Amino acid sequence: MKLADFIVKEPMVIGHECAGIIEEVGAEVKHLVPGDRVAVEPGISCWRCNLCKEGRYNLCTDMKFFATPPVHGSLANQIVHPADLCFKLPDNVSLEEGAMCEPLSVGVHACRRANIGPETNVLVIGAGPIGLVTLLAARAFGSPRVVIVDVDDYRLSVAKELGADKAVKVSTDTKDVAAEIDQIKKAMGAGVDVSFDCVGFNKTMTTALGATSSGGKVCLVGMGHSIMTVPLTPAAVREIDLIGIFRYKNTWPLCIEFLRSGKIDVKPLITHRYGFSQEEVEAAFVTSAHGGKAIKVMFNL
Amino acid sequence: MKLADFIVKEPMVIGHECAGIIEEVGAEVKHLVPGDRVAVEPGISCWRCNLCKEGRYNLCTDMKFFATPPVHGSLANQIVHPADLCFKLPDNVSLEEGAMCEPLSVGVHACRRANIGPETNVLVIGAGPIGLVTLLAARAFGSPRVVIVDVDDYRLSVAKELGADKAVKVSTDTKDVAAEIDQIKKAMGAGVDVSFDCVGFNKTMTTALGATSSGGKVCLVGMGHSIMTVPLTPAAVREIDLIGIFRYKNTWPLCIEFLRSGKIDVKPLITHRYGFSQEEVEAAFVTSAHGGKAIKVMFNL
Amino acid sequence: MKLADFIVKEPMVIGHECAGIIEEVGAEVKHLVPGDRVAVEPGISCWRCNLCKEGRYNLCTDMKFFATPPVHGSLANQIVHPADLCFKLPDNVSLEEGAMCEPLSVGVHACRRANIGPETNVLVIGAGPIGLVTLLAARAFGSPRVVIVDVDDYRLSVAKELGADKAVKVSTDTKDVAAEIDQIKKAMGAGVDVSFDCVGFNKTMTTALGATSSGGKVCLVGMGHSIMTVPLTPAAVREIDLIGIFRYKNTWPLCIEFLRSGKIDVKPLITHRYGFSQEEVEAAFVTSAHGGKAIKVMFNL
Amino acid sequence: MKLADFIVKEPMVIGHECAGIIEEVGAEVKHLVPGDRVAVEPGISCWRCNLCKEGRYNLCTDMKFFATPPVHGSLANQIVHPADLCFKLPDNVSLEEGAMCEPLSVGVHACRRANIGPETNVLVIGAGPIGLVTLLAARAFGSPRVVIVDVDDYRLSVAKELGADKAVKVSTDTKDVAAEIDQIKKAMGAGVDVSFDCVGFNKTMTTALGATSSGGKVCLVGMGHSIMTVPLTPAAVREIDLIGIFRYKNTWPLCIEFLRSGKIDVKPLITHRYGFSQEEVEAAFVTSAHGGKAIKVMFNL
Repeated sequence: MKLADFIVKEPMVIGHECAGIIEEVGAEVKHLVPGDRVAVEPGISCWRCNLCKEGRYNLCTDMKFFATPPVHGSLANQIVHPADLCFKLPDNVSLEEGAMCEPLSVGVHACRRANIGPETNVLVIGAGPIGLVTLLAARAFGSPRVVIVDVDDYRLSVAKELGADKAVKVSTDTKDVAAEIDQIKKAMGAGVDVSFDCVGFNKTMTTALGATSSGGKVCLVGMGHSIMTVPLTPAAVREIDLIGIFRYKNTWPLCIEFLRSGKIDVKPLITHRYGFSQEEVEAAFVTSAHGGKAIKVMFNL
Repeated sequence: MKLADFIVKEPMVIGHECAGIIEEVGAEVKHLVPGDRVAVEPGISCWRCNLCKEGRYNLCTDMKFFATPPVHGSLANQIVHPADLCFKLPDNVSLEEGAMCEPLSVGVHACRRANIGPETNVLVIGAGPIGLVTLLAARAFGSPRVVIVDVDDYRLSVAKELGADKAVKVSTDTKDVAAEIDQIKKAMGAGVDVSFDCVGFNKTMTTALGATSSGGKVCLVGMGHSIMTVPLTPAAVREIDLIGIFRYKNTWPLCIEFLRSGKIDVKPLITHRYGFSQEEVEAAFVTSAHGGKAIKVMFNL
Repeated sequence: MKLADFIVKEPMVIGHECAGIIEEVGAEVKHLVPGDRVAVEPGISCWRCNLCKEGRYNLCTDMKFFATPPVHGSLANQIVHPADLCFKLPDNVSLEEGAMCEPLSVGVHACRRANIGPETNVLVIGAGPIGLVTLLAARAFGSPRVVIVDVDDYRLSVAKELGADKAVKVSTDTKDVAAEIDQIKKAMGAGVDVSFDCVGFNKTMTTALGATSSGGKVCLVGMGHSIMTVPLTPAAVREIDLIGIFRYKNTWPLCIEFLRSGKIDVKPLITHRYGFSQEEVEAAFVTSAHGGKAIKVMFNL
Repeated sequence: MKLADFIVKEPMVIGHECAGIIEEVGAEVKHLVPGDRVAVEPGISCWRCNLCKEGRYNLCTDMKFFATPPVHGSLANQIVHPADLCFKLPDNVSLEEGAMCEPLSVGVHACRRANIGPETNVLVIGAGPIGLVTLLAARAFGSPRVVIVDVDDYRLSVAKELGADKAVKVSTDTKDVAAEIDQIKKAMGAGVDVSFDCVGFNKTMTTALGATSSGGKVCLVGMGHSIMTVPLTPAAVREIDLIGIFRYKNTWPLCIEFLRSGKIDVKPLITHRYGFSQEEVEAAFVTSAHGGKAIKVMFNL
């Protein structure tokens, strides 16, 4: 089996979004006791390389990450994990919400890198799970105005319920780009300071580069196309910077705070729940792959 | 006549790189007197819009810029220009060097935006005039190691004389990209922190994105292709940021200081000199357009 | 009469917080028409000096500022002012609220310089008008937790109504500093990332420096003492940076957006209103100087 | 014996500036082999706390640092130390120069935090060892103009030999501050962008705050007085930021590169050399404490 660039030769446990209850802690662990409910950050970085030491541990090339071969994932009854990557949940945050810290971290990291604040008008392209967590994060970082675009009416309606100011339906036809950019600008009613492309196709990136104001930023979050054909130079001469992201770093405490305070509510993203029986697991994957209205599918013990 | 996006309907004076001698100053001008030798920053921005007020006046949409229609350029015996855009030259900096502040400003602005310093290993792609001023600027900003690439041996030899540590000859064939990236990395002998693409073609940008280390930056300086086909996503997931530049801002004082202190010597870039007679002017443009070894062609009164 | 460092030799109109209705506009003004309601930014900077060009126009040494001798202030029936410093108010923002953009700008500028966001726990020292606008701004910038301290119970109760999470009553006795710092930390229940000293006395600055976590910031907003005796070195070796502020820059659009969206409500700060008759003006100044519960005193035509 | 805030109850090895030769490496160490000459970074941080994870490991409260009780120091024939804190020296850098990476790191960290570059005119207050390494670092970061002040003629002459543009002799009398600030400004011939106070007394900090231009920075490097009496408010209203530093982080590779390339020559700072016999060690401490012209005293095996 081939998984991205990896060849998987033996059976491997998958999964990297999880939360659980502490059973046992090491002798030096002081911030956790058995029974504590925790959200789990999946990646263990080396803390020896320059990137780790400079605070960009997400880029560590020696990282051991759940379900990235040959490391087993977290879709299991029990895992052993470093204590500093287990974050205690407050009483008002459930384990399910705790598991949502992982996808939410992607949106949070993107907003941090793009420096979202109360002066940043935001365009989110794509209203799938990643677009939605980016929308939620942008709102929590104080963005005064968020416009979201997608090809699907249902997704756009979910985005509006989750806090988007305006939703713009777009096509997959590249001939429509110029008209759609006009629509987006009209919907924003002001300059677009930062665009998040949560899809990553030629057309979505072309839209992002064209819709963003001079001096703004485009953050590439989705990973649709690898090689892209896009109008880079016209954007560069307007000093629009193109920001990449990889996973996240130091995001769990902030995500938990957003959940605790109610600034972000991830519960509407959890659309389906299954148990751990073989039957249920198989049904869960069918739902996740084909269920048109599934956003996040949760397994509960 | 069509010039980029502009339609030029009447004869227009061209030119935007110049220096001269003050003949007359306004009543409130205090830092200049007739006879002062000055370098001239060409763009007059509005100072009323948000971009101007936030310190990004180079992005001002109301800018009046030499030789950008309908504004006349500076290839003239006499010009009228705001005093705050005329910068007095020290005794040891010639008018010719003063005129070179304009192209040098492009390199300086690029180095500022890419945050070049004594910890930044730099790759410069393209050894034409813009590549060379970027090389000079990167050195002056303290880059410990600069590798330059080009398709032309002569240009590379000039670059090495101007301070590049290593020169790598490349082809125009996209099939060679992977091998050339290896060569560049070997020449650097360390990670590439910032790449300046001073050409702006699919291939050069592909090289830049591939050669740069995780967490680094690619700065697009050249403007070869408008729409580019490049591997954006693999670079984005290594958090390589793509920085655009437009002209420059606040660069004249620094350029003049570099020239005064000798940290940068632009004289080797001035390869040809002409007078203002019609015959000489015509010859100058022929040289500039076709002369293989011409870097900068200077007019002197 | 002496006013700070200024000697005022002739009668001078005072006042620098105002809003009004446009009567007439210059020929080139496009964003305003007679009848528009506008908030007014009081300072006219030179746009010729380095600080202006670099985006720090608030530090311009040639600034002409309302009521800073010899420039007349804005406590008048009519003023002439540059159009780019007049900001149109939305329908749901009153002239009184528009005038409040000036004091609010101080808090906004302080929050920007101290980089307040959803991860910044904030301590505000002093619950006078400046402390209160700083509290409001910190909340609007997304601070998850704000603790405020003052010597006065009434002021603290106002601060809690305006959104402070916890209020700590302190004394003016320097012997209490250590105990009060403990109280503040307990009230925060987490590290203090940024402290705003909105008083500027030896004791308040000592509290700020001691309460702030390693790597945090102290922002000096109040101007009580000029020469201060404070434990600078113990703070410096914890890399606590001390940030100064002067007025504000580019704050009006953001303040108006905060008022429009309801993220900030300044109406509770307007405690008294007077007309323009001599009698009323005199009464207003008495209230402002001696009225224990006056926060902001407003004149209305 | 009392050492700063520490009570030392048992004999303790001192010393934290050292370099040496690798005798043995752990099984997973790949970048070092026995016989390698290395410079040693003294502090071992926890890599579990927020400050470590955010890239500010120098502020880690669990750091184990050479000669900081109860951790033994490095003035020993042999030490055991993590491989990632041992940095291989190039052939042209001696062990003595390697040991100098430690004090040089203080200057480098200060220059990084104060963001020194080719546009930063620098004032260094104090020409003792820390002032001198700060001067060397400021030059290597590209500062175009460095003025240094001290009370001692000999120290100033050393500073000029090491690259200061101008040296200003000052007194210890606070009455002279205003006149000395004038002298410093005259010597600079331009605005002071960053001042490093490498002494840390009331008078030196008063000089730093007064000499620095609006919008500039003062970096407190020396630790003379703990509680300081200084004009903070007049500096704050000119938006001069006061930056603290604690030790250093990620500085060894850069220091070694500065030594390798010759951008910094630390050899003139090594004024005395001793062996490890008891006699010599005692003599070394006498020299270090009382020898007027001693800068750095080196022990060699």
